[in-house]
Amino acid sequence: MTLSATPRTRLRRKRERQADDRALLHAVLDEALVCHLGIVDAHGAPLVLPTMHARVDDVVYVHGSTGAASLATEREVCLTVTLLDGLVLARSVFSHSANYRSAVVRGRARRVSDPEEHLRALWAVVEHLTPGQWNHARRPDPRETAATAVLALDLCEASVKVRQGPPGDPEEVPAGDRRWAGVVPIGTVLGTPETCPALPDDVAVPEHVRAWADRTRVAR
Amino acid sequence: MTLSATPRTRLRRKRERQADDRALLHAVLDEALVCHLGIVDAHGAPLVLPTMHARVDDVVYVHGSTGAASLATEREVCLTVTLLDGLVLARSVFSHSANYRSAVVRGRARRVSDPEEHLRALWAVVEHLTPGQWNHARRPDPRETAATAVLALDLCEASVKVRQGPPGDPEEVPAGDRRWAGVVPIGTVLGTPETCPALPDDVAVPEHVRAWADRTRVAR
Repeated sequence: MTLSATPRTRLRRKRERQADDRALLHAVLDEALVCHLGIVDAHGAPLVLPTMHARVDDVVYVHGSTGAASLATEREVCLTVTLLDGLVLARSVFSHSANYRSAVVRGRARRVSDPEEHLRALWAVVEHLTPGQWNHARRPDPRETAATAVLALDLCEASVKVRQGPPGDPEEVPAGDRRWAGVVPIGTVLGTPETCPALPDDVAVPEHVRAWADRTRVAR
Repeated sequence: MTLSATPRTRLRRKRERQADDRALLHAVLDEALVCHLGIVDAHGAPLVLPTMHARVDDVVYVHGSTGAASLATEREVCLTVTLLDGLVLARSVFSHSANYRSAVVRGRARRVSDPEEHLRALWAVVEHLTPGQWNHARRPDPRETAATAVLALDLCEASVKVRQGPPGDPEEVPAGDRRWAGVVPIGTVLGTPETCPALPDDVAVPEHVRAWADRTRVAR
């Protein structure tokens, strides 16, 4: 199954970096801990806010307070995630770049009203942040559920872009030029869990949190 | 000097997270290696693309190919950067959150045409990625300069939002409830530089790159 390119998501440039690969789209969305949600505000100006998301099959969910303007209504959105994998330090300034994997999902987001889908979306977001956490924490009560808005965005119109590998300086390395070039990998690491100071001293960090924190997301 | 709040950048919610502090705005923009640039496309739909930026005084620059649609014209943009500092795992699902520092800059971006400012912006972007790199790499030639578009966005209309600290579960911890809560810190690390395979084996990683890669950006 490949992503259905539309005129909006077909890249105008660097087409070799576009991978029409749904598995890659899923992987990029799943690895990213934060997304950037773009909307057009009431005055026609762009507004981009960071938020947390989760994917279930071919739907990506974002959630927030029902008081958040960006989640208030069904609307056209653009949800973008970026995994920065490395700094590409070339021999020429012009060829400097970054290694990254990014996903851009565009479409009309719908407010989720079905109670079952609403709960599934919250489950997905919590499990996306830390697997195993949903069964650990107290579930939302009706008041909390009512205060939480969930937007759903189908993965119909989406593109993935990837750059990896060494610098792409156009010129051959001139004999005698000893200028270094290469890639500095970038990764995300999770640190040692810090217990909430409100808790008794002897409450241990649970295994699912410890295992998650031990996982280091390294650059490819 | 404090940021001049406008009706657009004044937060509607969580005002305690907004820090009217220009130094903090600068620090967040400077620490972020990637930004997300939001525009409104020709059809009125939002589009958010990742790109690299740099700040010089109270101007933030983004650059790219002159062929990139998002940089083609002077326009309203929203430039957002987000530093994710931790996962906030609360006792209740509802109180789950993230520790982060984010900056949102809105305004009309102008295309930089002055050659001196254009060069200064490229210098700033390269030095932002890896300090010392500008003096190491070959400078842009006229053809490369002509192929590089630079947008400038004044830091007039900007907001910074910060969440830090332990989970904010509303309820007191009930006696006997041994459920763990806390924060999993998140940081960005730079890895061991990988020399471009096109270079002779004995070209050493320069000191400025080695020093930069040794720097670990840790969660606060």
